Amino acid sequence: MCTSFKHRPAADGSVVVGRTMEFPAGLPWQLQVLPKGHTFSSMMPGGRSWTSTYGIVGFSAVVETAVMDGINEAGVSGHGLYMTGFCHYAEPRHDGNDLCEGDVIPLLLGTCSSIAELKAAAAGMNICGFDPGVGFVPPVHFVFHDKVSSCILEMRPEGLSIVDNPVGVATNAPFLDWHLTNLRNYTGITASNPTTTIDGFALHPLGNGGGLRGLPGDYTPPGRFVRAVAQVSLAADVADGPAAERSTLHILNTFDINAGLIRETGPDGKPVSEVTEWSTVSNLTGGRYAYRTINDPTVYVIDLATTDFSSARSKPMPDTLTGSFVPATL
Amino acid sequence: MCTSFKHRPAADGSVVVGRTMEFPAGLPWQLQVLPKGHTFSSMMPGGRSWTSTYGIVGFSAVVETAVMDGINEAGVSGHGLYMTGFCHYAEPRHDGNDLCEGDVIPLLLGTCSSIAELKAAAAGMNICGFDPGVGFVPPVHFVFHDKVSSCILEMRPEGLSIVDNPVGVATNAPFLDWHLTNLRNYTGITASNPTTTIDGFALHPLGNGGGLRGLPGDYTPPGRFVRAVAQVSLAADVADGPAAERSTLHILNTFDINAGLIRETGPDGKPVSEVTEWSTVSNLTGGRYAYRTINDPTVYVIDLATTDFSSARSKPMPDTLTGSFVPATL
Amino acid sequence: MCTSFKHRPAADGSVVVGRTMEFPAGLPWQLQVLPKGHTFSSMMPGGRSWTSTYGIVGFSAVVETAVMDGINEAGVSGHGLYMTGFCHYAEPRHDGNDLCEGDVIPLLLGTCSSIAELKAAAAGMNICGFDPGVGFVPPVHFVFHDKVSSCILEMRPEGLSIVDNPVGVATNAPFLDWHLTNLRNYTGITASNPTTTIDGFALHPLGNGGGLRGLPGDYTPPGRFVRAVAQVSLAADVADGPAAERSTLHILNTFDINAGLIRETGPDGKPVSEVTEWSTVSNLTGGRYAYRTINDPTVYVIDLATTDFSSARSKPMPDTLTGSFVPATL
Amino acid sequence: MCTSFKHRPAADGSVVVGRTMEFPAGLPWQLQVLPKGHTFSSMMPGGRSWTSTYGIVGFSAVVETAVMDGINEAGVSGHGLYMTGFCHYAEPRHDGNDLCEGDVIPLLLGTCSSIAELKAAAAGMNICGFDPGVGFVPPVHFVFHDKVSSCILEMRPEGLSIVDNPVGVATNAPFLDWHLTNLRNYTGITASNPTTTIDGFALHPLGNGGGLRGLPGDYTPPGRFVRAVAQVSLAADVADGPAAERSTLHILNTFDINAGLIRETGPDGKPVSEVTEWSTVSNLTGGRYAYRTINDPTVYVIDLATTDFSSARSKPMPDTLTGSFVPATL
Repeated sequence: MCTSFKHRPAADGSVVVGRTMEFPAGLPWQLQVLPKGHTFSSMMPGGRSWTSTYGIVGFSAVVETAVMDGINEAGVSGHGLYMTGFCHYAEPRHDGNDLCEGDVIPLLLGTCSSIAELKAAAAGMNICGFDPGVGFVPPVHFVFHDKVSSCILEMRPEGLSIVDNPVGVATNAPFLDWHLTNLRNYTGITASNPTTTIDGFALHPLGNGGGLRGLPGDYTPPGRFVRAVAQVSLAADVADGPAAERSTLHILNTFDINAGLIRETGPDGKPVSEVTEWSTVSNLTGGRYAYRTINDPTVYVIDLATTDFSSARSKPMPDTLTGSFVPATL
Repeated sequence: MCTSFKHRPAADGSVVVGRTMEFPAGLPWQLQVLPKGHTFSSMMPGGRSWTSTYGIVGFSAVVETAVMDGINEAGVSGHGLYMTGFCHYAEPRHDGNDLCEGDVIPLLLGTCSSIAELKAAAAGMNICGFDPGVGFVPPVHFVFHDKVSSCILEMRPEGLSIVDNPVGVATNAPFLDWHLTNLRNYTGITASNPTTTIDGFALHPLGNGGGLRGLPGDYTPPGRFVRAVAQVSLAADVADGPAAERSTLHILNTFDINAGLIRETGPDGKPVSEVTEWSTVSNLTGGRYAYRTINDPTVYVIDLATTDFSSARSKPMPDTLTGSFVPATL
Repeated sequence: MCTSFKHRPAADGSVVVGRTMEFPAGLPWQLQVLPKGHTFSSMMPGGRSWTSTYGIVGFSAVVETAVMDGINEAGVSGHGLYMTGFCHYAEPRHDGNDLCEGDVIPLLLGTCSSIAELKAAAAGMNICGFDPGVGFVPPVHFVFHDKVSSCILEMRPEGLSIVDNPVGVATNAPFLDWHLTNLRNYTGITASNPTTTIDGFALHPLGNGGGLRGLPGDYTPPGRFVRAVAQVSLAADVADGPAAERSTLHILNTFDINAGLIRETGPDGKPVSEVTEWSTVSNLTGGRYAYRTINDPTVYVIDLATTDFSSARSKPMPDTLTGSFVPATL
Repeated sequence: MCTSFKHRPAADGSVVVGRTMEFPAGLPWQLQVLPKGHTFSSMMPGGRSWTSTYGIVGFSAVVETAVMDGINEAGVSGHGLYMTGFCHYAEPRHDGNDLCEGDVIPLLLGTCSSIAELKAAAAGMNICGFDPGVGFVPPVHFVFHDKVSSCILEMRPEGLSIVDNPVGVATNAPFLDWHLTNLRNYTGITASNPTTTIDGFALHPLGNGGGLRGLPGDYTPPGRFVRAVAQVSLAADVADGPAAERSTLHILNTFDINAGLIRETGPDGKPVSEVTEWSTVSNLTGGRYAYRTINDPTVYVIDLATTDFSSARSKPMPDTLTGSFVPATL
C-alpha cells in the first residue's frame, strides 16, 4: 500500500510531490537511473518498444527497468500504487503494442514532458499484467503529476481509465471516483478549534486539533486518502522549493508505517508486517528526487541536472539497519 | 502539545523512549547540558536548592536550566508536557522548599537513578507556577521513565499526584486517569484485517489496516494518546538498542505535526500554527539522546558516556531551514 | 432522506421490510390505495399506460397516484428514496412509452409479483423527471423487495441501472455500488465486547456495545447505510411474522430523526429541519402494511387481504400533533 | 445499560425527561405505585425508615418497592442506571441509617419536592449494596431532575458524590465528570451541512446530517452519552408539554436497542442480548408518566393527578409480544 500527494505550490511556483511505498519487507528495492535516447522494449513478449527522450530517476524492484516511482528531467513524476481487488489488466493483443504494468512509468516518463502529453500518450495503451519475478502479477494503478495538474491511470474492467485528479492524492483501492465521493463525508474539517456551548455549559476542545474531529486514524486506503487530503489542504503556505520539500517530508512522516502496526498473511500463512519501505520527495520544478528508506534515517537527494542519463544504473537499498543518527556534542 | 511513549523493550533489554514537542514557532529552544556535582537553586525566590549527582542532556527554552525534556546518566528520562486547563500549581509556602515547573526535571533527573527513587523524591514537593519569561506560566505535567517503569506527576487541585503509568504513554489534557479510561473505548483494535460475511455477502477490508477501524485521526490529546498506545502495543519485536531507536523514530514520525494542520489563536488574535518543534529519542539503556528539529531533517545523537558534565552548556536550535538532504549520485 | 432495509427472514419464512421517509415538514402526505384491474396513465404527457393486476397500499404526496412507498397484494414492496446530486433522469422520447419517477412504483407493483418479474419489466423503461407540483423534480432511486431478493433501480448518467441488492439496505446518495464498497471499511464489527490486554494492563469495554466501535453516528446517507446493515445483520433470530414486524419497528426507531437534529436551507434561505415524516413496516409474506407518522405515536396497520382494491382512495396524514399516549391506571 | 436525558424546556415552561432501560430479557419488571403518607423501611437489615410525603409512579423489578425509575407528585424524577465497574457501595454502619440502592429513589422521591431539597436530603446517606433477589448486587448510579436542574448521585470509592449535571444527560460507566470531559472531544458538532472547497474542488455533504461527522455510532455508555447530548442540544424548540413529550419520544426511539445488536455473556456462558426493556417519558410539569415496553408498541401514560396514592400497587409488564398495531382501513 502507498500514499502519494502533491504539496500545494510554493509562493515561487515550486511544486513538490511526496509518496510512500508500503510492502512486506524483503523485496530487493533499488534506486534506478533510466537513460534518455535509449530504446526500451516491453517486458511483454513481442510487446511494444519506445525510445526515451527524458532521463528518469526512481525506484524499482526485481526488474531494474520496471520503475514504480520516479521523476523525469522534464519535471513529471509517476507513481505506481497497489490496487488490490480492483485492478483489471487487459488481455494481450499480440499486435506488437502490448505493455505491462512495469512499462507504464518508464514509457510515459521517458517520453512525456507534461500531463497533457502524457494523457494523450496513454490513451489506448493495452496494459496487461506481468509477473516480474515476485510470484504474482502486482495489481496497481498510477498517478502522474506535473507542475499544473495530476492524472490517474486505472485498469478497470471496462478498460483503461485516464482521469484528472483534482486533489492530487492517491492511495490504494478502490478507484479514484470512490475516494473523491468519500471526501464528501469529511466536509467541515478545519485546522481551528471550535467551541460549543450547550445551555450555558461551554465546551472547549481539550487541546488544539479538535477541528479534525472524525478524521479516520486507521491505515486503510480510504483512511489514508482522507488524511492526506486534510494534510495537503491545510498545510501552511511555503515560500520556495526547499520549504516545500521540507513540508512534504513532514507530511510524509505521518504516513510512515512501522513494523507491526499492520499485518497481512504471508505466503506461509504467518502474519507479516507491511511497512513503509521507502518514501520519496519529487521536486518537479527543482529537478530533485529525495528518498529515505526504512533502514536508514538519512534523507538522500539526487539532483537530476547533474545526473548522467547516458546509461541505466541501479543501486540496491540496504536490507538491514544502516546509516546512523549523526553524532553531536555540546 | 506533546506526545511521549516508551517503546516495548528490545530482546536484549534495551529500553527507548520517544517524545515530540509541539508549540507555536518562535520559542528559542536550545539543547542543554546540566552538570553533575553542581548546586542548583530553584527559580522561585527563596526556593529550594539541590546538588546534582547525575549529568543531564535535554532541551530547554528561555531559561537554560529549565530543561523540559531530558535524560540523565543513570538512564532515567523526564518529559514535561502541556496540561492546559487542568494543571493547578501550588501556592508558594516561602519555607525554603518552593519549586517551580522548570525545576522539576533538573532536580529529579539530577538526583535520582530510578523511578522508585524519583517517586520518593517527588513526594511532598511544592511545585508552584513560574513564568520563565514567555509572558505566562506554562501549565504542564511530567512523565518519567526508567528501564522498568514509568510514572506521571500531575499538579491537581487537590495537590501533587504521583502515579504509575501502566502504558508508558503521555500526551496532554486531561489527567492520566481519564486517558486510561478512554482506552477502554478502543478495545479490540488489531493489526490484522478482519473479514465479515453478511448473509453470504463477504466483506473484505479494502486494504491492510482495517483492524484499526475507529482509531481517531485528529490531533487532540486524547486522539494522540489512543494512537500512541496502538503504535506502541502493536510494534513488532526489536532485537536491540539500535533497532529500538529506529522503531521509536518511525513511530515519532507519525506524530510529526506540520505547519498549518492545527492552529490556535496567537496573542495578536491571528491564527498561528502549532508545530512539532523537535522530537527526541532517549535510549535509557544505551545512554544516548537523539533529536531532530523542525528545521533540519538530520537526526543528531548525543552519547552521554562521552559528554562533559562538568559545566552547563547550551546550543541554540536553528530557527530557519538548515541542514539538508544528503546529496547522492548513482 | 430515507432509510430502507429488509429484516432477516423469520424462522417461519416471514419477510418484513422497514422504511423511513425524511423530508422537511409540510408536504401533504396521504395513505393511498391504488386499485387493481385499473388502467393508469403516466404523468408524462403522451406517456405510457398500463393496467394493474395487483392492488397497492402505500404513501403518496401531492399527486395521489404517485406512490413513493408501498406493498402490493403479491408481496412485493417498493420504496422511492432521494438520490440528490446523482439521479440523472432520461430525456422524454415522446414515443408513447415515457414514464416519470412517480410512475415507477405504481407500474411495477401494479404489474409484478416478484423481483424477477420486476427486473424484466423495468428493463428498458424510459424514466424521466417530473415535478408533481412541489416546485422541483425530486431526484430519487428505488429499492424493491420480495420474499427472496431485493433490487435497486438507479437513474444514472449512462442510463437506467437495475442491480441486485445483496444486503437489502438502501438510503440515499451515492449509488449502491459506492455503499457496498464502503461497507468494507467496517469489517469486524461485532455484537460482542472485545477485551484487549496491553503488557498486562487489561482493557475492558466500559459497557456492552464496544464491538461496534467506529460505527458512524451521523445521519448522512453513508452513515445510515452502515448502521442499517449492522442492525439487520446482527438482529436476533425471530420466530414469525409478528416478531419480525416488532423487530423491524425496533430497528426503525433508531432511524427516527427528530426535529432540529439535521437542518437544510429552505427555499426562503432559512434553516428548516428535515424530519422523519413517517415510517412503514411492510410484511411481504403476511400482506400487512403498517405505518407511524411524525405526529401520532400509534402504529397503524392495513391488512391487504381485507382491503377493497376496486378503486383509488386516499387518507391525508395529520399535520399537527394527534393521537395520544393511551391512558393507563394502576 | 440505560440512557436518560432532560429535553430542553418548552416555550410554556414544560419540562420532560426521557429514559431507556436496557437489560437482558427475563427480569420481571412491573409498573409500580408507591403511596404517600406511608412509612417505608430500608431493605437493609436494621436500616433506615422514612415516611413519604409524595406519591410515586415508576418501574421496579423483583422487589416491588425498589423503584429504579419514577416521578413523584411534586414533579421530581429519579432514574437508577447501571455503573458497572465503578460503583462502590458503602459498608453498613448498623446505626439505623443504612440504606441500599433500591431505597434511594423511594426515599428521595417520597420526601423531596425539588433538586435543592433532594441534594440536602441525600447528603450523608450511607448507601450500601443489596441483592434484591437477582443473584448479585446491581451496581448503579442515579440521576434526578426537577424543572430547573439535574443532579447525579454516585457511589465512589471515596464516598457518596452528589453533583450538578449541567447537560441533563446520564448513561452508564464511567462517572459523570469523565463524560463531561469527553464531550470536549465533540465540539463543533452542528445540525447544518458544512461545505469545504479544496483548491477549487468543492465538497458538498452527500446528504443532510454531515455536521454530525464523528459522532460515535456504537452503544457503549460514552457513545450514547455523546449522542444524547447532541440530540438534546440540537432539538427544535417545542411549544408545550404535549410537544415536548412527543419530541422526547422521538429522541428515545433512537436509543431503542433491538435484540441481537449488543450481546453479553450470560450466567451460563452463552451470549445473551441486552435489549431496551422499557422507555419512559416523565412530564415533570404536567404530572404524567408515560412508558413503552419491549413487547408492546403502544405508549401508555399515567396521570399522577388522578392516581390513587393511598396504597402500593403493581402491574407486571408483559414478557411476550402483546398489544398490537392498531387496525386501520381506507
